[in-house]
Amino acid sequence: MELPSKILEEAVGQLAMLPGVGKRSALRYALFLMKQSEDEVRNMSESLLRLKTDLHHCRYCHNVSDTEVCPICSSEKRQQGIVCVVENVQDVMAIENTQQYRGLYHVLGGVISPIDGIGIHDLEIASLVKRVEEGIPAKVEEVILALPTTMEGDTTNYYLNKQLRPMNVKVTTLARGVAVGDSLEYADEITLGRSIVGRIPFE
Amino acid sequence: MELPSKILEEAVGQLAMLPGVGKRSALRYALFLMKQSEDEVRNMSESLLRLKTDLHHCRYCHNVSDTEVCPICSSEKRQQGIVCVVENVQDVMAIENTQQYRGLYHVLGGVISPIDGIGIHDLEIASLVKRVEEGIPAKVEEVILALPTTMEGDTTNYYLNKQLRPMNVKVTTLARGVAVGDSLEYADEITLGRSIVGRIPFE
Repeated sequence: MELPSKILEEAVGQLAMLPGVGKRSALRYALFLMKQSEDEVRNMSESLLRLKTDLHHCRYCHNVSDTEVCPICSSEKRQQGIVCVVENVQDVMAIENTQQYRGLYHVLGGVISPIDGIGIHDLEIASLVKRVEEGIPAKVEEVILALPTTMEGDTTNYYLNKQLRPMNVKVTTLARGVAVGDSLEYADEITLGRSIVGRIPFE
Repeated sequence: MELPSKILEEAVGQLAMLPGVGKRSALRYALFLMKQSEDEVRNMSESLLRLKTDLHHCRYCHNVSDTEVCPICSSEKRQQGIVCVVENVQDVMAIENTQQYRGLYHVLGGVISPIDGIGIHDLEIASLVKRVEEGIPAKVEEVILALPTTMEGDTTNYYLNKQLRPMNVKVTTLARGVAVGDSLEYADEITLGRSIVGRIPFE
């Protein structure tokens, strides 16, 4: 597909770098932008750049934040003694959406993955250990490991548990089991197996 | 979905305005950009803005162009006497990709559509009539109507034909028929009907 303009071509190339966006979609986006007013495109362009220039990460939990300490870490309504360790920002949003959790978070920024060249020093592991050790921003009583159930997630869980256990802190992980509303018949064996092994008292 | 940052929220809102992009994809794009270097995001941001500030439309055919007259209109290798009328920039690219057409183009920028509030003055119709009347950039011998086969496309074809006929110019339209490689069995009746009515000598 040859484009009639270098400027258009460059914009398409840039947009096609977005995850899951191919050349054809990128062209559609670029032609859409061309039809918008200059102000509108300027707004978008500036707002994207602000993602790099103005956006901060919370100094405690490393979640994205407009302020140095994020609203969750600085809220007095949250249980400061519980820290939920997640892979990324989306996971925080997913858990917040459940409205079932009132503790704090710790965003690792990934999981240990030697294949992708991600080691412990590329993740916010040292800062987590320091949080628990020194009680930042408050004494930590429980760490919930809410990492993905992949080989990499399990490796990270194992490493974190090894680091945290000596510190006299409760380490828990998410319950795995058959999803609410799913029938047993269609649940995969591993999930169903875990839900039996991890059965809980009927209340 | 509540986002942890106003800046992130604004970027997501802006990205979600792109055609076919929902909030979830927009968030994915924004988080992707956050992980890129500031230079990379600046490049993208500037390149999008240049779509409005630096990109021109060819003064003859109204296709996008980096120069005042586009490479197609200024090429001596093209047949300057044939003008193919299309709806938009993508159509020019589609026809160019066939490598079967060596004439010029005229990009209308849409088709007549009273429902969407698009009338003849919102389109490059007057400039087309002027091109044929005054022979810009060269005497026009044939106008090919390559608009979509929709009610709006047909209306526009009808109107253009009415305008152009008195000017002693040949007006043609694309052949419609069964696609190459398609079996007759699965072709829709209108297309198959047209391909019979518009049958051509076997060579």
